[in-house]
Amino acid sequence: MSFIYDRVALIGLGLIAGSMALAMREKGLAREIVGHARSSETRETALEIGLVDRVFDTAAEAVKGADLVVLAVPVGAMAAVAEEIAPYLQAGATITDVGSVKQAVVNAVSPYLPEGVHFVPGHPLAGTEHSGPRSGFASLFCNRWWLFTPAEDVDETAITRLETLVQAMGANTERMDAAHHDLVLAVTSHTPHLIAYTMVGVADHLKRVTESEVVQYSAAGFRDFTRIAASDPTMWRDVFLQNKDAVLDILGRFTEELFVLQRAIRMGDGQHLFDYFTRTRAIRRGIIEAGQDTAAPDFGRSQKPGENAKS
Amino acid sequence: MSFIYDRVALIGLGLIAGSMALAMREKGLAREIVGHARSSETRETALEIGLVDRVFDTAAEAVKGADLVVLAVPVGAMAAVAEEIAPYLQAGATITDVGSVKQAVVNAVSPYLPEGVHFVPGHPLAGTEHSGPRSGFASLFCNRWWLFTPAEDVDETAITRLETLVQAMGANTERMDAAHHDLVLAVTSHTPHLIAYTMVGVADHLKRVTESEVVQYSAAGFRDFTRIAASDPTMWRDVFLQNKDAVLDILGRFTEELFVLQRAIRMGDGQHLFDYFTRTRAIRRGIIEAGQDTAAPDFGRSQKPGENAKS
Ligand SMILES: NC(=O)c1ccc[n+]([C@@H]2O[C@H](COP(=O)([O-])OP(=O)(O)OC[C@H]3O[C@@H](n4cnc5c(N)ncnc54)[C@H](OP(=O)(O)O)[C@@H]3O)[C@@H](O)[C@H]2O)c1
Ligand SMILES: NC(=O)c1ccc[n+]([C@@H]2O[C@H](COP(=O)([O-])OP(=O)(O)OC[C@H]3O[C@@H](n4cnc5c(N)ncnc54)[C@H](OP(=O)(O)O)[C@@H]3O)[C@@H](O)[C@H]2O)c1
Repeated sequence: MSFIYDRVALIGLGLIAGSMALAMREKGLAREIVGHARSSETRETALEIGLVDRVFDTAAEAVKGADLVVLAVPVGAMAAVAEEIAPYLQAGATITDVGSVKQAVVNAVSPYLPEGVHFVPGHPLAGTEHSGPRSGFASLFCNRWWLFTPAEDVDETAITRLETLVQAMGANTERMDAAHHDLVLAVTSHTPHLIAYTMVGVADHLKRVTESEVVQYSAAGFRDFTRIAASDPTMWRDVFLQNKDAVLDILGRFTEELFVLQRAIRMGDGQHLFDYFTRTRAIRRGIIEAGQDTAAPDFGRSQKPGENAKS
Repeated sequence: MSFIYDRVALIGLGLIAGSMALAMREKGLAREIVGHARSSETRETALEIGLVDRVFDTAAEAVKGADLVVLAVPVGAMAAVAEEIAPYLQAGATITDVGSVKQAVVNAVSPYLPEGVHFVPGHPLAGTEHSGPRSGFASLFCNRWWLFTPAEDVDETAITRLETLVQAMGANTERMDAAHHDLVLAVTSHTPHLIAYTMVGVADHLKRVTESEVVQYSAAGFRDFTRIAASDPTMWRDVFLQNKDAVLDILGRFTEELFVLQRAIRMGDGQHLFDYFTRTRAIRRGIIEAGQDTAAPDFGRSQKPGENAKS
C-alpha cells in the first residue's frame, strides 16, 4: 500500500499512539512518523524501540510540516496541547485526537485551530489496562470500531483520508455526533469503569478484615473488575471530569436500578430477580451476534496456574 | 491412579457435575459414576454423552450404594434433595455439595442427615456463564480453588479423601468457616455479579434510546459485564436469596463508596479520583501475584472479528 500521509506527528507516545505507530509501520501507511511526549524518558524509549523516526522536545516543533497530527494525550491535556501547536500547524493539515470523550475535546481544541486545518475528532474503541510507550501493539485496532465526530462543515476528503488510514490499521469506522458518542460511551465504558473501581475499592477495605483472602480467592466476577480497575488513573480521572453530565446521568439510573434489586433481595422476591437476570442474558446474545465478543467459555481458562494446594 | 471412590452419585447434572464427571473419568478416579437430574431430557443427555454410567429417575435411587454423593443443584434446591435422599444414604458415605453459598446449605442440609454420614460442604471457585449437561469440560477445575467448610467434628479421613479427589481433578483446596466463606464470596463474586446484572439492565433500557448502538459499540468494560450478567438466572437468584445478609452488607458499603466518587465527579475533585484509582491498581497486582490471573493484555484480543467497516 502506498503512503496515506507523508508525515504523521504523534503528540503523546503511550498505548494508543504507540499502537498506531506500530500499525502504520507494519502496513507502510506513512512516509515518516515523528512524535513528542511530555517526559524525555518516554521520548527516548519511543525512539529506542522504533515507534517514531524522530522525537521533538516540544509539541510545537513536532507538528511542523506534518500533514496528520494526532493528539494522543489524556483528555484533560488536549486544550493546552492544542493551544501550543496551533500556530505551527501546516495549512491543509488534518488534526485528530484519540480521546475517550468527544464533546469536551471538541470544545477544548476547536477554538485554537486556524482556518484551513481539518479537525476530525476520533476515538478508537480499543485499549488495554496497560499504558506507556512499551504497551502498544500493531494489532490493537484490528476489527475494533474507530468512531469519528467531525463537525458538519469539515472537508469530506480530509475525513475520508483519515478513515482510510485507520481502516488500513484494521479498524471499522463510523461517524456520529460528539454528544451522542459521549452518552453511548458513558453506558458502555465510563460508568462500568467507575463501578469496577468502586467495587475493587470496597474489597480493598475488606481485605484488611479478611486478610488477603479477597485477593487469594478472587472469583470470576471480581477478577474482571480488577482488570478494568487497573486502568490508568490519569486517563480515567480525565474521562470522568470531562464526561461529567453523561456519567452522572447514567450513574443515577444505575443506583435506581440497583436499589430495586437490593430491595428484592431484602424482601426475598425471587421472581423479580429471576426475571431481571433473564432479561440481561438477551443483551449478551446481542453483543455476540454483533461480533464484539465470542461465546467461548474462556472465563479464566487462559490464566496462569495458581499456587499449588496448600492444605 | 486407583479409584478414590467406588460409586459417585451426582445429584444435578449441569455445568459443575458434568465437569466433575468428565474430570473423574479422565483421571479414573471413580469406579462408577451415576446420576440424577430433575428433567428426563437432562438425564438422557447425560447418559448419551457419557457423563454418567447410569441415571435414575429419583435422587433417592441414585444415592443408594454410593460412597460419595455430590449435590450439584441450585442452592435453593438443596434442602428438598437432602430430605429426599437422607433415608437412602449408605452408612459411612461422604456427602458434599458444590453450592456457591455455604452457611445456608449447611443449615438446609444438615438437619436431614443421619448419623454415620460425613457431610463436607464444598465450593469450587470455577465456572462459566454457561449451564446444562453439555456445558461441562474436564479442565474446569485445573488450578482453581475448591473451598471446604466442614463442621469441626467431621471425620478427618473423610475430608482428606474428598480433598484428594478434587486435587486429582486439578484443584487446590482450602478449608474455612462457612460464614466466613460467604462474606469473602459476597465481595469477590456475588456483589460483582449483582452490579454487572444492574449495569446491563441500565444499558438495556437505554438501548431503546440509542437504537442498539450500546450493543454495537460495546467497549471493554461493558463487554466483561455482559458476560458476567449472562450467567444462569436460577443459580444467581438462589445465591442472592441464600447469602442475603452478606450481600446486603457489601452492597451498602458499595453504594457508600460510589456516592463518594459520584460527588467527586460532580465537584470536579480530580485529585480524589486520581488517588482512588491509584489505590485500586494495587489490588490487581496482588491478584496477579497470587496467581489467579495473568498480566497479559488480552482485552478482547481473543475475540471474533467484528463486522466489516460500514462507513
Ligand atoms: N488506554 C485506553 O484504553 C484508551 C482507549 C481509547 C482511547 N484512549 C485515549 O487515548 C489517549 C491516550 O491514552 P493512552 O492509553 O495512550 O495513555 P498513555 O499510555 O498513558 O500515554 C499518554 C501519553 O501522553 C503523554 N502526555 C500526558 N500528558 C501530556 C501533556 N500534558 N503533554 C504532552 N504529552 C502528555 C504521556 O507522556 P509521558 O509518558 O511523558 O507522561 C504519554 O506519552 C487518552 O486521551 C485516552 O482517553 C485510551
Ligand atoms: N456455574 C457456576 O459458575 C458455578 C460455580 C461454582 C458453583 N456453582 C454451584 O453449582 C451448583 C450447580 O450449578 P451449575 O452451574 O452446575 O448449574 P446447571 O448447569 O444449571 O445445572 C443444575 C442441575 O441441577 C438440576 N436441578 C435443578 N433443580 C433441581 C431439583 N430441584 N432437583 C434435582 N435436580 C435439580 C438441573 O436439572 P435439569 O437440567 O433437569 O433442570 C441441572 O442438571 C449450584 O449450586 C451453583 O451455585 C456454580
